Amino acid sequence: MTKALNFQSIMMVLQQFWADQGCLIWQPYYTQVGAGTMNPGTILRVLGPEPWNIAYVEPSIRPDDGRYGDNPNRMQMHYQFQVILKPDPGNPQEIYLQSLQALGIDPRQHDIRFVEDNWQQPALGAWGLGWEVWLDGQEITQFTYFQQSGGQILDPVSVELTYGLDRIAIALQRVSGFTEIRWNDDLTSGDVNLTAEREHSTYYFEKADVERLREMYTLFEAEAENALSNGLVLPAHDYVLKCSHTFNVLDTRGAVGVTERQAYFGRMRSLARKVAVAYLEQRQRLEYPFIDQVTPVKAAGEGSRAAGEPVEISYAPSSKPAPLLLEIGTEELPVGDLDAALTQLRANVPSLLAELRLDHGEIRVSGTPRRLVVHVADLAPRQPDLEELVKGPPAERAFDSLGEPTRAAEGFARSKGVAVSELQARELDGGRYMVAVVQTPGRPAPEALSEALPQLIAGLRFEKSMRWNQTNVAFSRPIRWLLALYGEQILPVEYAGVRAGGSTRGLRYRQPAVLPASDPQAYFQAMEAQGIVLEVAERQRLIRQQIEALASEVDGQIAEDPTLLAEVANLVEAPHALRGGFDPAHLALPRQVLISVMKKHQRYFPVERDGELLPYFITVRNGDGEGVELVVEGNEHVVRARFADAAFFVNEDLKRPLEAHLPKLDTLTFQKELGSMLDKTRRIKDLVGELAARLGLNAEETATAVRAAQLCKADLATKMVVEMTSLQGEMGRYYALESGEPPETAMAIFEHYLPRFAGDRAPQTRPGLAVGAADRLDTLAGLFAAGLEPTGGKDPFAQRRAALGLVGNLIAWDEDFDLRGGLAAAARLQPIPSSEESQAACLDFIVERLRNLFLEEGYRYDMVDAVLAAQGGNPAGAARAAQALTAWTAREDWKTILPAYSRCVRITRDQEQRYPVDPEALEEPAERALYAALQAAERAERASGSVDDFFNAFLPMIPAINRFFDDVLVMDEEARLRRNRLGLLQRIAGLAEGAVDMSRLEGF
Amino acid sequence: MTKALNFQSIMMVLQQFWADQGCLIWQPYYTQVGAGTMNPGTILRVLGPEPWNIAYVEPSIRPDDGRYGDNPNRMQMHYQFQVILKPDPGNPQEIYLQSLQALGIDPRQHDIRFVEDNWQQPALGAWGLGWEVWLDGQEITQFTYFQQSGGQILDPVSVELTYGLDRIAIALQRVSGFTEIRWNDDLTSGDVNLTAEREHSTYYFEKADVERLREMYTLFEAEAENALSNGLVLPAHDYVLKCSHTFNVLDTRGAVGVTERQAYFGRMRSLARKVAVAYLEQRQRLEYPFIDQVTPVKAAGEGSRAAGEPVEISYAPSSKPAPLLLEIGTEELPVGDLDAALTQLRANVPSLLAELRLDHGEIRVSGTPRRLVVHVADLAPRQPDLEELVKGPPAERAFDSLGEPTRAAEGFARSKGVAVSELQARELDGGRYMVAVVQTPGRPAPEALSEALPQLIAGLRFEKSMRWNQTNVAFSRPIRWLLALYGEQILPVEYAGVRAGGSTRGLRYRQPAVLPASDPQAYFQAMEAQGIVLEVAERQRLIRQQIEALASEVDGQIAEDPTLLAEVANLVEAPHALRGGFDPAHLALPRQVLISVMKKHQRYFPVERDGELLPYFITVRNGDGEGVELVVEGNEHVVRARFADAAFFVNEDLKRPLEAHLPKLDTLTFQKELGSMLDKTRRIKDLVGELAARLGLNAEETATAVRAAQLCKADLATKMVVEMTSLQGEMGRYYALESGEPPETAMAIFEHYLPRFAGDRAPQTRPGLAVGAADRLDTLAGLFAAGLEPTGGKDPFAQRRAALGLVGNLIAWDEDFDLRGGLAAAARLQPIPSSEESQAACLDFIVERLRNLFLEEGYRYDMVDAVLAAQGGNPAGAARAAQALTAWTAREDWKTILPAYSRCVRITRDQEQRYPVDPEALEEPAERALYAALQAAERAERASGSVDDFFNAFLPMIPAINRFFDDVLVMDEEARLRRNRLGLLQRIAGLAEGAVDMSRLEGF
Repeated sequence: MTKALNFQSIMMVLQQFWADQGCLIWQPYYTQVGAGTMNPGTILRVLGPEPWNIAYVEPSIRPDDGRYGDNPNRMQMHYQFQVILKPDPGNPQEIYLQSLQALGIDPRQHDIRFVEDNWQQPALGAWGLGWEVWLDGQEITQFTYFQQSGGQILDPVSVELTYGLDRIAIALQRVSGFTEIRWNDDLTSGDVNLTAEREHSTYYFEKADVERLREMYTLFEAEAENALSNGLVLPAHDYVLKCSHTFNVLDTRGAVGVTERQAYFGRMRSLARKVAVAYLEQRQRLEYPFIDQVTPVKAAGEGSRAAGEPVEISYAPSSKPAPLLLEIGTEELPVGDLDAALTQLRANVPSLLAELRLDHGEIRVSGTPRRLVVHVADLAPRQPDLEELVKGPPAERAFDSLGEPTRAAEGFARSKGVAVSELQARELDGGRYMVAVVQTPGRPAPEALSEALPQLIAGLRFEKSMRWNQTNVAFSRPIRWLLALYGEQILPVEYAGVRAGGSTRGLRYRQPAVLPASDPQAYFQAMEAQGIVLEVAERQRLIRQQIEALASEVDGQIAEDPTLLAEVANLVEAPHALRGGFDPAHLALPRQVLISVMKKHQRYFPVERDGELLPYFITVRNGDGEGVELVVEGNEHVVRARFADAAFFVNEDLKRPLEAHLPKLDTLTFQKELGSMLDKTRRIKDLVGELAARLGLNAEETATAVRAAQLCKADLATKMVVEMTSLQGEMGRYYALESGEPPETAMAIFEHYLPRFAGDRAPQTRPGLAVGAADRLDTLAGLFAAGLEPTGGKDPFAQRRAALGLVGNLIAWDEDFDLRGGLAAAARLQPIPSSEESQAACLDFIVERLRNLFLEEGYRYDMVDAVLAAQGGNPAGAARAAQALTAWTAREDWKTILPAYSRCVRITRDQEQRYPVDPEALEEPAERALYAALQAAERAERASGSVDDFFNAFLPMIPAINRFFDDVLVMDEEARLRRNRLGLLQRIAGLAEGAVDMSRLEGF
Repeated sequence: MTKALNFQSIMMVLQQFWADQGCLIWQPYYTQVGAGTMNPGTILRVLGPEPWNIAYVEPSIRPDDGRYGDNPNRMQMHYQFQVILKPDPGNPQEIYLQSLQALGIDPRQHDIRFVEDNWQQPALGAWGLGWEVWLDGQEITQFTYFQQSGGQILDPVSVELTYGLDRIAIALQRVSGFTEIRWNDDLTSGDVNLTAEREHSTYYFEKADVERLREMYTLFEAEAENALSNGLVLPAHDYVLKCSHTFNVLDTRGAVGVTERQAYFGRMRSLARKVAVAYLEQRQRLEYPFIDQVTPVKAAGEGSRAAGEPVEISYAPSSKPAPLLLEIGTEELPVGDLDAALTQLRANVPSLLAELRLDHGEIRVSGTPRRLVVHVADLAPRQPDLEELVKGPPAERAFDSLGEPTRAAEGFARSKGVAVSELQARELDGGRYMVAVVQTPGRPAPEALSEALPQLIAGLRFEKSMRWNQTNVAFSRPIRWLLALYGEQILPVEYAGVRAGGSTRGLRYRQPAVLPASDPQAYFQAMEAQGIVLEVAERQRLIRQQIEALASEVDGQIAEDPTLLAEVANLVEAPHALRGGFDPAHLALPRQVLISVMKKHQRYFPVERDGELLPYFITVRNGDGEGVELVVEGNEHVVRARFADAAFFVNEDLKRPLEAHLPKLDTLTFQKELGSMLDKTRRIKDLVGELAARLGLNAEETATAVRAAQLCKADLATKMVVEMTSLQGEMGRYYALESGEPPETAMAIFEHYLPRFAGDRAPQTRPGLAVGAADRLDTLAGLFAAGLEPTGGKDPFAQRRAALGLVGNLIAWDEDFDLRGGLAAAARLQPIPSSEESQAACLDFIVERLRNLFLEEGYRYDMVDAVLAAQGGNPAGAARAAQALTAWTAREDWKTILPAYSRCVRITRDQEQRYPVDPEALEEPAERALYAALQAAERAERASGSVDDFFNAFLPMIPAINRFFDDVLVMDEEARLRRNRLGLLQRIAGLAEGAVDMSRLEGF
């Protein structure tokens, strides 16, 4: 192996590489920027229609990444190499990979992957879709299709590559941290930059003068506006950058509250937008000179062609069924988009074929991050001919008095492509009309498919989609090749500027990259030969098998995690699991921190033994075992850096007790009218005090709950949670314990977030239940009071989840609770008035969630309605009722119970008045018997809301009811008798009140 | 010819070149800097003992260089390439020249020269000595031996190279301005940066908000102090840089007064010093790790060796006289230093040889910028033996009573290296002393010279000298080789780490660079063969011949300018003149601007015809005619850029009338106690009003003078004068005319500065005379009142020149003027009180200048004294008197005149009382006759102060005087007679009063 490049050579090699591609080599910017993106060479030049290709080093300043030089690869200054290709050359991934090879990275020896990462910079109104590029688990490049900048839609889209040079050097030189990077023959990065890291970290975190920095910000902002008002784009941009850096320092210094942050972002975004607009106007005035001057970077690869080039089409005749294969070759699809595409294809392909009137055999839809594959067996070679009757004008108006066809008839015939003479008169829809018999001859399948398949692709929808080339079509990620075979025939399918050819692409980094695929069978063989597993389920199975085997080698197990498994399986085409280890000293960190780092950041499977973490992780690379030591080493380096970083946060947070983080919550707005998170915390505490007894807490539990309520949101102000929001609650518990709070309090802090997601567990302690309930009631009551109920798909405060959690926990604890009263108590604590109507609307909203919950649990809708109508305000009761009602309705005698009760109700429900029963006026024996039965039922002991108790009380009355209706005329002419009988039945109907509204049931 | 490198390739080639030399390749700094020097990679790393080699691009921001993109090579942002070599590798010029070759610059095809330029950055307390490197007249690199930074002396010294990349690209690509530089294949610098130039120029010159920038400055300064107080070096440095940039913007915006500027500089320098000290302490704490880590860049060349290496010496025996040749080979010496060295060598070599007792023939001292050459013909091979008598103790104390030598005798003998027995007693100095006869055997000349020549070199002194290598010796510029031949023998001379060898170096860029020189004759032949002209006078003669020939080709002439000629002759070894032209449109600029630009900036000879400039210039390159078109083209480009720049200044200035520049003078302090230049202007105006009549101005002239006085300093506030101070007065006149002032006023503005230097002309108009006089009187009276008279060599306010100009002009105009009265008038206008003593001291100071003036004009000192004692307060009168007196003393009858007058004076001068003459008491005929002669003399018509009139009146009295002294006893015993006679003589002695003090004359 030749000696790895030193750091300065890495920069020089990349400069030369991109110069050779046609990029303009540019210089770092002269004011502090957080990323090369902010250099006007990117952020402005990506705007507008002109082509632009540029590459440059950018030492990037991110104050809050300062680690005093202690972290292996997180620094307040890191070196980026920034590339912009505008427009997309068609093969940017391939060019990028060549650049890695120019640096001496052999992709076969490493695990290089494109992992979804959607970049955005809210302060600059910029975003794009793309990936982190992982080298052995380490993010070494951000690869983005830049969609918007300064709030302006980009057309054309730019490809943005941002190399993390330090990380690349660490990997290339196989050193353990930035301080060891060999910069040149004599010196390391540590030699030249360690002092800077220490000093700037100290300055940013500890010493920067907040007041002065705020003043600087104000001055910079004013000068940006000054420059803008004078039409000076670049001076304005410079000051926007200075604002941005100053904001970053203030933020790192801990001086920016969360609400304030939003305000700052808004101000910067507004400036950035004005700068972008001014720049665009300027370029327009200049008439976009680069359009003629700048040569776009060209793709060398096949399969890509300029849009609008004429395509010559010919279809080979075909007479017998043949298999159809469609492969949509893409750049790496995000995990969720892959699933979404497969789901849609499974639904859309059959309906498409039906619409095309093409008979077919089995349809198989599969896919990997780089390809979506549809295979249809035995597809008919031709559509059958079709004959359709089309209704035309009324027959009487089709011919005039002379028997000549009218204009209406002529027009109709012409529009249907038939002669007037071919029109026929038919009886239709109760009248006589002229009809045309329209013959649609069947087309050959290839012809029909060539038209239809692009529409199939175009019909796929993604949560976020992107544009990339001049066709401006949107997809999850760029489509780079298409394979469309009907038997051995290549279908002339074209989409997104790509025309289907007779080849596919193999596993990344295998040569040759392009593989012929002469027919569907050959295609599947080629995939298998490459180790590509097309079926998601099969990949999951393989991964589970591999990771379990690796875990058991160290006497460990892998906990179930279907989400992670699904994610990992969608990140690779050919899964190959590897085990790495880490320093057991890291196990001192909170377990959940370790797990979160491994799973969320790295998509690793943690290894456990008897519920304790082991110092191992398992990762799944794409490919095979080649270069496995390097890959493991790289991943181990990454996890070491990650854990070091987590340790930094935790240690910083632990410098103060949890309670001391509370004041910071005052800077975190919950909602404008409802105050800060600190205000909310105070309300939760008060509400917990009010609700404790109603939720069955004893005195000790109440004290615990009140204390936990006070601290429950404090961890939101800690660095660890700011860094990884998913650790909220977990860190609260950990820091509470470390701060000397009783374990019960710590547990309640953690549990008040439960359940965190669908299927998560409920709190195990009453204080946890109570604090969570108070938090959610406060959220719901407050937001409804502020007029902020969720509408349509919008639910920015996650009120649905809050409501679901609230009712779910009450059901889980089987704890009766009066939601209406709880909401009223919460409403009284709000800083704004809460009307009866808003509280009612809020209750309806919660009950609606309960309804959905029951429905999803499989309860029949009518039973859910019946239960909720009676006791929706008490979820636990409703749940019991739903269960009991379901059981009763399943009984053999149900068909006697329901009619008996319904007869009583139906005859009385239109009565506006409630009539008293006068026993003296009961004349008939049947009615006297019924009255006696009623009295017995009314005397029965019944638990509140109990459906069983109701039915058990009601059941003995049925014979009396039936007899009553047989013998007695309720609606007697004599009012006295009639009212007395109605009153009797009204009492019977009332027996179900508070338990179930039987009238909602089917068959009632 | 291969295609010239594009701009980005120039950067990449330089990166690679310097990386190959062992430099660390660094990145531009992340905050605006005016130069790569300010990047901590230079400004801090040059401090302390550690080696350090670095190279990087630095886009450098200089707001006041903004030209809205209109100037070919002056921009608010230019691209530097910065290199630091620490310590000096021994051949940095050669490495640098190789880097130019790497860029494709063939030095043989160009005129590449090292022109003295001493860099300093007052805001950072940094300075160094070195050159501008000129490529065809264009400065393309600043080459500096960095002596001090942050107020700290640098040891070792760093070599700093700062390439001007834009200018190099313009030359390489042969384009006419930065906008045409090809950055890559598609785009030019103009494409990517022209808008930036326009916008930033507009911002810096017109739109930046002064108040906000001042606030920013204050905040940055406070944060620098904050960082420093926390020991954070780099954060502090960043803020110093931000201060510096903010100051530059304020300055460009025209918001900084001259005094304020000094205050800003002081504040920044103080911060920079603290940063430097803190950095040094930090490195010391770290124990200077780079000392072991960084490999110094090594010189490949011969002639250089590490200090302290043992030198083996052997001298070949020699018996007959031989020539001595010493060549001190240097990097390019500054013009003045070359002259100074030659002058000193011409004085020191003969005395050295005399001291060495070496007989010799003719001594010839010559030199060029790269070599100082001493040739001595027929130098004796050996010193003669020497016998010296040395006086010892008195003989009587040399031996004790026993005849044994005393301790004194023994000590003396020992100290002289002789035996006590060899001491002899001799009569000496009027006593008897013991003497030793000390024999010093003559040494061989080579041996003596080897010791003495280094001291000869060490004894050379320069106005500014520098250190460069570890020997820490100081010289004008580094000494890179020595040649010391005695006949054919190489003398083992060593100095400054360089040991003399048997070779010299040829003209730069000729191959081979190193030439053998086996003996002095071969040396001179080699020089001649290279075209090197060693004699300064010969170079001057050749240049004059060449430039006159070139001028006459275009029917033009070259005005005499010995200063420029001398300068140019000292800039080259082999002069070769070239003529270039420029667009005649530039002739619209003020003549003096054009001339100043050509002479001062470019050392060009302007070409005139009948006193009008022609659109040509003549430059003198070093070498021959090779590549002459390129050289001319390059120079034409430069002058075009220079003139464009001048036009920019002039046009900016002309946007307002001259008077409108006056308020700016209020920001320019003349002297703290005496107020601003505006205050001074007001005083001059008032004083002119008072003095006008005394200086013979009529009413019209007075009005002109007053108006001119008001405007006389206004041009100091214009951009053109700020840029080129030497144009003061010239621009004032020009702007006055352009502003519609009458020509007389404009002329007086110009003339008030006359004479500007020794030998310059006097004003031609009375208003010019009057304003100049008022200005100078104000300067002198004011500064003396403030206690600021020049002391020793210090004369910061140039009061000597002011006084000389004042008296010189009065003499030139032959205008009688009472200096005492003028000073009193000036004193009354000062804002501070002026004592009689200070005014007297001031007058004395002026008279002292007058004395020097007369002495330099060749007047005998006694006559100068005689005249000044009588009428020093009136320079014109004194001048007439000196001339007349000189004529009288030359007369044949002077020997009768002087004694006659002196007899009258001598006998009376001790009298304290003045006696009246009583004619009745004149008894003797001789005294009566004398009295009659006196009355006749006293009645003679005499002009005030006229020496001629005095003598003509006195002359007839001589016989009477002589008779009187023959016949009359003055000191008669009778007091009445005695007093009467003394009174008579006193009246005679008084005749010279106000004209001449005869008693000061020799022989009086």
